[in-house]
Amino acid sequence: MFRSHTNGELSLKNLNEEVTLSGWVQTIRDKGFMIWIDLRDRYGITQLYFSQEISSNELFEEVKKLNREFVIQVTGKVIERKDKNKNIPTGEIEILVEKLTVLNESQLPPFKIEDETDGGEELRMKYRYLDIRRAPVRDKLIFRHKMAQKVRNYLSDEGFIEIETPVLIKSTPEGARDFVVPSRMNPGQFYALPQSPQTFKQLLMVGGMDKYFQIVKCFRDEDLRADRQPEFTQIDCEMAFVEQEDVMNVFEGMTKTLLQDITGQKFDKYFPRMTFADAMQKYGNDKPDIRFGMEFVELNELVKGKDFKIFDDAELVVGINVEGCADYTRKQIDELVDWVKRPQIGASGMVWVKFQNDGVKTSSVNKFYNEEDLAKIIEKFGAKEGDLMLILSGNENKVRTQLSALRMELGNRLGLRKGDVFAPLWVVDFPLLEFDEESGRYHAMHHPFTSPKPEDIHLLETDPGKARANAYDMVLNGNEIGGGSIRIFDKDLQSKMFDLLGFSKEEAEAQFGFLMNAFKYGAPPHGGLAFGFDRLVAILDGNEVIRDYIAFPKNNSGRDVMIDAPAAIAEAQLDELQLQLNLKA
Amino acid sequence: MFRSHTNGELSLKNLNEEVTLSGWVQTIRDKGFMIWIDLRDRYGITQLYFSQEISSNELFEEVKKLNREFVIQVTGKVIERKDKNKNIPTGEIEILVEKLTVLNESQLPPFKIEDETDGGEELRMKYRYLDIRRAPVRDKLIFRHKMAQKVRNYLSDEGFIEIETPVLIKSTPEGARDFVVPSRMNPGQFYALPQSPQTFKQLLMVGGMDKYFQIVKCFRDEDLRADRQPEFTQIDCEMAFVEQEDVMNVFEGMTKTLLQDITGQKFDKYFPRMTFADAMQKYGNDKPDIRFGMEFVELNELVKGKDFKIFDDAELVVGINVEGCADYTRKQIDELVDWVKRPQIGASGMVWVKFQNDGVKTSSVNKFYNEEDLAKIIEKFGAKEGDLMLILSGNENKVRTQLSALRMELGNRLGLRKGDVFAPLWVVDFPLLEFDEESGRYHAMHHPFTSPKPEDIHLLETDPGKARANAYDMVLNGNEIGGGSIRIFDKDLQSKMFDLLGFSKEEAEAQFGFLMNAFKYGAPPHGGLAFGFDRLVAILDGNEVIRDYIAFPKNNSGRDVMIDAPAAIAEAQLDELQLQLNLKA
Repeated sequence: MFRSHTNGELSLKNLNEEVTLSGWVQTIRDKGFMIWIDLRDRYGITQLYFSQEISSNELFEEVKKLNREFVIQVTGKVIERKDKNKNIPTGEIEILVEKLTVLNESQLPPFKIEDETDGGEELRMKYRYLDIRRAPVRDKLIFRHKMAQKVRNYLSDEGFIEIETPVLIKSTPEGARDFVVPSRMNPGQFYALPQSPQTFKQLLMVGGMDKYFQIVKCFRDEDLRADRQPEFTQIDCEMAFVEQEDVMNVFEGMTKTLLQDITGQKFDKYFPRMTFADAMQKYGNDKPDIRFGMEFVELNELVKGKDFKIFDDAELVVGINVEGCADYTRKQIDELVDWVKRPQIGASGMVWVKFQNDGVKTSSVNKFYNEEDLAKIIEKFGAKEGDLMLILSGNENKVRTQLSALRMELGNRLGLRKGDVFAPLWVVDFPLLEFDEESGRYHAMHHPFTSPKPEDIHLLETDPGKARANAYDMVLNGNEIGGGSIRIFDKDLQSKMFDLLGFSKEEAEAQFGFLMNAFKYGAPPHGGLAFGFDRLVAILDGNEVIRDYIAFPKNNSGRDVMIDAPAAIAEAQLDELQLQLNLKA
Repeated sequence: MFRSHTNGELSLKNLNEEVTLSGWVQTIRDKGFMIWIDLRDRYGITQLYFSQEISSNELFEEVKKLNREFVIQVTGKVIERKDKNKNIPTGEIEILVEKLTVLNESQLPPFKIEDETDGGEELRMKYRYLDIRRAPVRDKLIFRHKMAQKVRNYLSDEGFIEIETPVLIKSTPEGARDFVVPSRMNPGQFYALPQSPQTFKQLLMVGGMDKYFQIVKCFRDEDLRADRQPEFTQIDCEMAFVEQEDVMNVFEGMTKTLLQDITGQKFDKYFPRMTFADAMQKYGNDKPDIRFGMEFVELNELVKGKDFKIFDDAELVVGINVEGCADYTRKQIDELVDWVKRPQIGASGMVWVKFQNDGVKTSSVNKFYNEEDLAKIIEKFGAKEGDLMLILSGNENKVRTQLSALRMELGNRLGLRKGDVFAPLWVVDFPLLEFDEESGRYHAMHHPFTSPKPEDIHLLETDPGKARANAYDMVLNGNEIGGGSIRIFDKDLQSKMFDLLGFSKEEAEAQFGFLMNAFKYGAPPHGGLAFGFDRLVAILDGNEVIRDYIAFPKNNSGRDVMIDAPAAIAEAQLDELQLQLNLKA
């Protein structure tokens, strides 16, 4: 038996008990005639005590040979500590060690196994198995597990059935971003890894398996932006005989339960809802962070025709009121101007208006706008004394995006985006289609199976870009954490959608033939939603870095630097697959 | 709102309520002036009633247009049924329909959507989404979900953490049976899909994440035997600071809980244990079905030296006692002889001995064995009047395997292998190594990380084939449902194992380098186990066909005939991956 207790459970209740513990040597404090060791395992830390006076000479000699991260087993008596540490559960006791066994030695690790480490990200990823020993990483993985359990139990209790869909599926002609898997048994043919179980969950609905869910790995061979992973995890769900409200109710309930468990606060039964159009107008963003205000205020009517050419030429003049920041110095404001002019943001400039604490109204455009003009602008913003207004102008879509970025940046700088405050929100009434200038045709905003709102179906003939979808996104703290739609379940409407999206009959058949075939045999009305589980977990834990919540993540080049994958494979393997490399220069 | 209730929940309690139901038309019984329809969904069946007398003409006309598998919505009143069906929960009521909406039409399905269908396996697989509508298939998928939930909750309650390990990993030089995935971002390099998360779970132990589990997809590109799937699901577990007993305790507890939930019976806290050597001697099989006896009885001492050349020349003469079958006719016994002589079994013949109901002792070898000889044989078998003894002879290993097959066949024929009786068992003390005649070297029986029993370590130098492993299999009803081992956690012992297995230093480094590297930083003692989840579920449900418990299984050629995967991919996709086909004639 390697241990009678873990390193997280002993307390004064166990005083004088003889116990056996195992774990890693976290720290050694050697005072010459007394030595203390912090022994660590998954469950916590327990202090070990060795005394030259009490311990045997052999034991004391052995302890002197220990080093950080050695794996040891000790037996001894639980005694009361002199200098208690009330911050940890075991902080009032220590173990007077009588017997020590070194279970395994350790080289000195390449970085410190402590909450604050000296290892850079790349080094920690290469030695991820050591990184995982650190409490913050360990706790994130445990948090992820708990969330998965809560989701599974919630959905099971609601009557959902978890069904595993296949990982080895079929690549679709347009699916250039599928990972493919050559089949040895079927030479020249390939499986594909699923980007999502979308078609399978719809087939399950056709199969009558109402209320499906799955926490499932999905795969996307796309160029990785920061914090994107080639393999990621979704909570995937689908329901039959439902309307939009039915789906939203279930997942609002699920998210509310998670939030209440984490925060201990009560959340409203219903999350606020905002249309896509409103979100774009008020926040320049279809996933607004509503933990703070700074809603957009449009100023076209007030500011045009005053000879300020920049505003006169702009399609849209729009600003935000930054409360209590009228005392920003010239330098602070210039820095913000530089910030919005960075290529990533791309604004050409920024106008500011101050309603000073002394009641004075001033701006960077005093030449064009007198005090009366400024008073009207300030009134429109609903600003108070002490507030600073920042105004951007230009092309409508671009300026909204720029102002949204500025709003979020100020939210961060002013500490308004608190990790322990949660503001969930539904965004609804998305456009069904987006027009893509480059290809000159419509794309499905969600995917080709998303149904239009019944009252907008007529627009598909006349003005497809105006048609709204039965689609909904759940937004939490400025992140889209989930999204879904009510699907088309009518063959004819689906054909019309494929037409609109520019698919020929043959293309539609090749890509979606088996789903369309299934729809001939009595498809029920159905809809669902998928959550990005990695992101959901990160945000629920008050963080935004997905990678921290993945046990063995890949880097931005899609590499696992710990195991050094991907890697070349043996010629014999390629040969067996009847493939050869065709490397470009 | 598509429904106020499901089709499984209405009863006499709801009498006279106005309800709305949706579902599929299961059956139509048209009596001219009265029509009954069984309406089906995931939850059950509810009978709908239409009467020419009561219903409107339009409604009655509409009903006449319905056909099997149409998706409909009805509103009506719950009334008491005349001819009650007490076998189903809704069997005492029916719905007097007032309003009918056809939600979707259906072509006539290619086979009957009933418990007993007329569709062959291939047709049902092609239309798996229709097969899933059938109650037996649906119930198997729901059963699987429930088992997964119970396993997850049990292990979570025991302090285990579910951690997702990567699906895109690295192929090992000898891993010719890995599925590989070309990386577009790293041309010429490949990921591999995991055959199991073995190395990752060991890395998690090095990382201090004691008590890991995962229900996880694994992949094996092997030639598929009947009922093997290229993607399959494991319950994968690993613990740190444990000995064999600790691991066995946890998973015995887990399995016991599942068995008790399913059967409503109490199971012993500890499952019986049998050494590998005993299992081979008593059952000729390392996964014996102990729901019935027929233990092997070895007869060398009794039967040799009686001029029966076949027995005299045999390495082993061994038989089983088939109780109560002494009245088998000559024809029945000849059929059994033919059965053991089939090429799949390969016996050269079979000897029988009867202890007839009238007390007469006779055999197929009366020429060589007199009544006194037979009496001794019968005594050795412990046979009673009315029993039939069947005896095989030959090479020791071969004859055990043959007799094991015969024993199982008789178990099936005599109805001794009951689907609702569960006899779990641990098989322990497996050999560490198997000698492979072909390659002339040892293979790891379990895998190269399995530790030898401490008392057998010295045998690695002198007689490696005799060394036993700290390995254990859980066997249920003649199937290995799980297996595991205590791992080697000492670098030097691991090196010795690699030597024994014939790995050069370079090969060991290339295949297991990152794990060996991790072991330098304080690996704890650890061990674990994995269950084949598909098989476990099938057996717990009293079945043995894995495929039935997979929503979208592949056939014996590894094909998904529903979506027609694998398939050729576009030239552009190959090009982007910098690959080309190299098809052999």
